[in-house]
Formats: sequence, C-alpha cells, structure tokens
Amino acid sequence: MAYEDPVDGVAVEAAPLSEWTARLIETIGTPADVADDVAEILLAADRRGIASHGTARLPQYVSLVQAGVLDPGARPVLDRSRPALARFHAHNGWGHHAGRVAVDWAIDAARSVGSATAVVKNSNHYGIAGWYALRAAHQGLIGLSSTNASPLVAPTRARIPMLGTNPIAVAAPAGRHGTFCLDMATSTVPRGRIEVAARRGEALKEGWAIDAEGRPALTPEAALEGSLQPLGGDEQSRGYKGYGLSLVVDLLTGVLGGSSSGPDIVSLFDPSGGPSDLGHAFLVVDPAAVDDPGAFEARLERLLDRLIGAPTIPGAPARVLFPGEPEREAEALAERRGVPMDREHHATLVALGERHGLPFPPTRPLPPRA
Amino acid sequence: MAYEDPVDGVAVEAAPLSEWTARLIETIGTPADVADDVAEILLAADRRGIASHGTARLPQYVSLVQAGVLDPGARPVLDRSRPALARFHAHNGWGHHAGRVAVDWAIDAARSVGSATAVVKNSNHYGIAGWYALRAAHQGLIGLSSTNASPLVAPTRARIPMLGTNPIAVAAPAGRHGTFCLDMATSTVPRGRIEVAARRGEALKEGWAIDAEGRPALTPEAALEGSLQPLGGDEQSRGYKGYGLSLVVDLLTGVLGGSSSGPDIVSLFDPSGGPSDLGHAFLVVDPAAVDDPGAFEARLERLLDRLIGAPTIPGAPARVLFPGEPEREAEALAERRGVPMDREHHATLVALGERHGLPFPPTRPLPPRA
Repeated sequence: MAYEDPVDGVAVEAAPLSEWTARLIETIGTPADVADDVAEILLAADRRGIASHGTARLPQYVSLVQAGVLDPGARPVLDRSRPALARFHAHNGWGHHAGRVAVDWAIDAARSVGSATAVVKNSNHYGIAGWYALRAAHQGLIGLSSTNASPLVAPTRARIPMLGTNPIAVAAPAGRHGTFCLDMATSTVPRGRIEVAARRGEALKEGWAIDAEGRPALTPEAALEGSLQPLGGDEQSRGYKGYGLSLVVDLLTGVLGGSSSGPDIVSLFDPSGGPSDLGHAFLVVDPAAVDDPGAFEARLERLLDRLIGAPTIPGAPARVLFPGEPEREAEALAERRGVPMDREHHATLVALGERHGLPFPPTRPLPPRA
Repeated sequence: MAYEDPVDGVAVEAAPLSEWTARLIETIGTPADVADDVAEILLAADRRGIASHGTARLPQYVSLVQAGVLDPGARPVLDRSRPALARFHAHNGWGHHAGRVAVDWAIDAARSVGSATAVVKNSNHYGIAGWYALRAAHQGLIGLSSTNASPLVAPTRARIPMLGTNPIAVAAPAGRHGTFCLDMATSTVPRGRIEVAARRGEALKEGWAIDAEGRPALTPEAALEGSLQPLGGDEQSRGYKGYGLSLVVDLLTGVLGGSSSGPDIVSLFDPSGGPSDLGHAFLVVDPAAVDDPGAFEARLERLLDRLIGAPTIPGAPARVLFPGEPEREAEALAERRGVPMDREHHATLVALGERHGLPFPPTRPLPPRA
C-alpha cells in the first residue's frame, strides 16, 4: 500500500508549488480565495501520494475553463437549508471550492446540533475525497465525503459503464495515531491503475475490468475499451456489493442533491462535453456532543493499537496498517523531500506556466527516501 | 442473487409465526411491546430470504437470556442528545428493540432538522441491518443502519479475526421501484456461506477466507478454523477497502457510541461468554427538507430505470438488478406461500415451543414457486 517514487523524478517544495498553482488558476478568471482552496486541495493530493488527483490535472482544468465548460468565477450559493441539512448550488464552478464551503457548513452545523449533512449540486471534479473528510477530522470531528463521477464502472451483469468510481472517504481523529482516513474508490481499481498496467505491459487480475463485450479483461488494452468492475469483482466474488456502494454514493450525491447521476454524467475532463453537473455529499458528526471530550479519540486510538499489533499472515510485507497510513507516510516524505513528480508531470506544468507567464518553481532531482 | 428454496422445506404463515415468536420471547421475561419489535424484525429476515438472521436464531437468543447474558427486560435509555445526534444506552437488552427505538428517534429528528444520527451502546445482536434502514425508507427518508459484531474477519495482512462482518445497510424510497435497500456484510461472504459450503462439500473461492495459519483457505473446514476475508479478498485484490469499510462501521458504532469494538467483542451467541456490548448506528436524511416533495424519489426511480435496462454481459442469468430486489422477491413469495423453513429450522422451533408450552403454528410442505 506504500506509494512508489517516480523513476527519475523531480521534487518541488510544497509552498511555492501551491502558490504557483493558485496564481495560475487566478490567471484564468478564478477569484484569489477560490484559487487558494483549489491549490490547497490539489497540493494535498500531490503530498499524499495521489498524483492522479493533484496538480497533474491542471492542464485539463485549464482546458475546461478555456472551453467555457467550467465557470472559474462562480461561487456556491446556499440553496436551501435546515439546521442539520443544507443543499448548495455550485453554479458550475470549481468543485474544490464548493466542497470546501459545504464541508465547512457541515462542520459548523455539527458543532451546533451534533451531526449534519451538506450536499452540493451542479458542481465539478473536487479532487481527493479524503481532503474534506480530513478537514473535519483535524477539528476533532468524524467526516465523511463523497462524490459521483462520470461513468467508468459496469454494474454487476451490465456490459457498459453506468456509474463512476464514486469514492467514499471517512476520517476521524485517532489520538496519538493522528487521523484515521479511508479514501477509496468503490471500483476494484481506478482507471489510472489500468493505465499504469498499460505502460508497464502488465496483465490484469480478474475482477478489475471487463472488455467491450463484457468478458473479463485480462489486458490493459481490452480494459481501456471496456469498463471497470466494482469492488469485489464479478457477481460470484460479490462485486454486487461494490456496485451497491457505488450506487449509494450516487444516491447521496447526485440523486439527493438534484445533479446528474449514473450514465447521465458527461465525461469529467472532456472540454468538448458539457458541464459535468456533479454532486458531492458531506456528513459530519461531533463525537464530543454526546460524550466526554477526548473519549472518542482515546477509544479509536486503542482499537487501532490492537489492529496494527495483530499477528500477520505468512509473507506479509510489514505489519497491519490502518486506513490513511500510506498517505500520511507520503506526506511526511513530501515534507522532507518536496513534492515528487514524474518528468512528464513536471514538463506539462512547466509548459503551462510558460503559456500563462508564470515560471514554474525550482525543482531538484527527487532525493532517495532514506 | 436470488435465494434458493430449502430442499424438502415447509411453509408457515407469517402472521401466526410472528405472534408465536413474540409470545415465546415474552415467556422468557420480555415485555410484550419489546417482544413485538423483536418478532417483527426476526420475521422480516425470514420473509426477506435471510434465514440466518431470523427465527432460526431463537434458540440461541433464548439460551443467552436463560444464561443471564442478555437482559430481556431492559429498556434503552436516551443517554445524551442534541437536536441531530443521540446516544442510547441499551442496558444489555434486546438489540432489535433498542435499534427500533434509536432509528425512530433519528427519523423524528431528521424530520425536524433535516438529518440526524443515533447511536446505541451496550446492546446485543439486532438482526438484519436492512430493517432499520427500510423503516426510514418506508417513511420517505434515506436510512443508513450499521452494527459491529464479534470478530470473524481478519484485517488485511492479519492472521486472526479482529473485526466483525460489520454490515452496512442503506435504504431509500424509489418511486414505482418501491425501495432501494443495500444490506451487505463488509466481508466477502458471511460465515453462514462457509457453513453452507461445508454441508455441500464445496471448495471455496479465493478471497473468501484464510486458514488458521493465514494462508488462503480453499476448503470450508480450513476456513472455519481461520478467518473470513474483507470484501475484495487479499491485499492484491484490494481487500484493504473491505477492511477499511469494516473499520468505519466499528468507528461509527462501537467507538462512537462507547461500546466494545474490534477484537474486544465477545462471541455474540455464546451463553458462556459475557454480554456482547455491541454498538449500532443509524443515520437518517429527509430529502424533502431541501427539495420539492417527491423529487428525490423520482430521480432515484429514473436512475434505477437506466441501470436495470443496461445491456448485459454474456452469460448473465437475467437483467441487471438493484440492491434489495432479491429480498423483495423473497418477500412477495413469502406473502403468497408463507415463510419458507428448512426441516432443521422447523424442528428446532417446534422443540422450543414444546419446552415453553407454546405449540408451533401449523405448517405445510413448501409449495413450488410457480
């Protein structure tokens, strides 16, 4: 579960990279405070080892804005609300900013009434689901974050993609373990993992994808023309559970919020498509509202102690982990070494900076981990 | 995903079976209204084709009560609450009743403030998670229900069971599709499925279980001495996602509520063990609180229409299903034919009735489905 370093990669300090990202987003029409939110959330992905959801996406976001598909100046509006439920209209602006505003609403509301839910409609890609859940966890609360996405996953028995990889993230404060943070796609693997297999010339495992005819895809090429499979794989191996979870995400995001859902969502990063009209959902619970302060954290710390101390199976690469540990390790590494980037990612951002008159920050060869 | 009829089974009408169940539970010291809740929830399992969680468990519940492990007369007490979060103390009474009281609190609170969470501590086995979620869905609300359970599942890399099969159920009103209801264990398969394989002399699929040494268990016998695997199977096939979900359940139930969690939970049905001190959690959202009445249901209906109409893979047994369809089909069958029971289940209940002076209701051979 530990992230691998890019081969022949470079390192960039997080602070200048974040500043450069924010200013670049500003040059295409984004208000400065909105741009700061987007940059913070993209950087969180890069720092946590989830490069697929970080600054590597910048050229695609810029294309969406330049094609008029995403409105960089839009601000989310609180559409309707009750003390523990709110619906925000993102007006086709940045998903990251709308998500930050909505989760902050849920955090405030949970502090006031114990728990709260916020949904966002008419939004766009919001980056890593985990950031919003961690936003709550860093304030002593339990946070859940979820979004729908354009269809890549075939429901159990279906031959074509009908649902997104619809992630679920849950985070909570865990005492001396820092934070617990599960952040998972409800497909077995993300599409990016198939692309990695294609670059490496790897065969695929059964349960990852089906081909265009609906048969198990055992090569990356066949998978890329077909569909991802939900967590669990095929019907026999209980893939209908992953399918059900993916559908629950759509139900709580697009369907509850009144955005598009399932097969109606257009491709997220295609500038020739229309707005993606995504939905997000955030649930926040304040454990201290019905318990002594710190009691929840202490109990979670004890449970994690027990789990990570469990005897391991033969051939285990190391001890048992809890959700969020690999990402936290990547964060610690990025703190020491800078944000790692592969050469292609770096070259793309340098070129983007040149086009917008914003020179990319200095880099150095990625130092070894030790 | 359709449930099979028991070979040479019998059928019992639901109403007299429910009445008999309630009165039997009353004879061991349960107040009549509490007994009615327990009977209704056990019958829901039998009617929905989930025999493992229904009246077949009665002899075990009775043993727990007679051994003094479960207090049949206890009533849940609202321990602490805020407008959108409550903690109930079940005082080691029936989990079914405590769960019903808690989900009803969350339903009322969600109607008032838009969404609400209720947790229960110091409880016992509460039957099928789906019943509580459906309780909300039948009133036009989105319901989530979850419970922890005694350890049967090995976390990714661990050699021994540390977590329960920790189910997640989510239900919602779906217009002319009735209700959506996902009700799933976070393990690949439940322990009952391994027991079925043992009776049938079947081999197991990889990803279901590990043996006592932590190697893949390919026979039911090896699995029964080992641990179940989380949804997804081993680390390579993304079982850490199922492990993470199972841990989220523990976090929202035992850890949030202040009950036991993970490996500290004693075996649920062992009369020689202590009280199981389980935690349950219920989350209810009222879609109409921030939307036009009926809008949510109409959108969910449309999404399900799209999914069940998808083209299917080669060899698909039938069209794409949505969560809850197989159980609803079982309910419709039970309505027509009575509740199906295998001979062993029936004989056990007849004997239990004789011991408590309550003759078991009349049965007939289970009619064929057509």
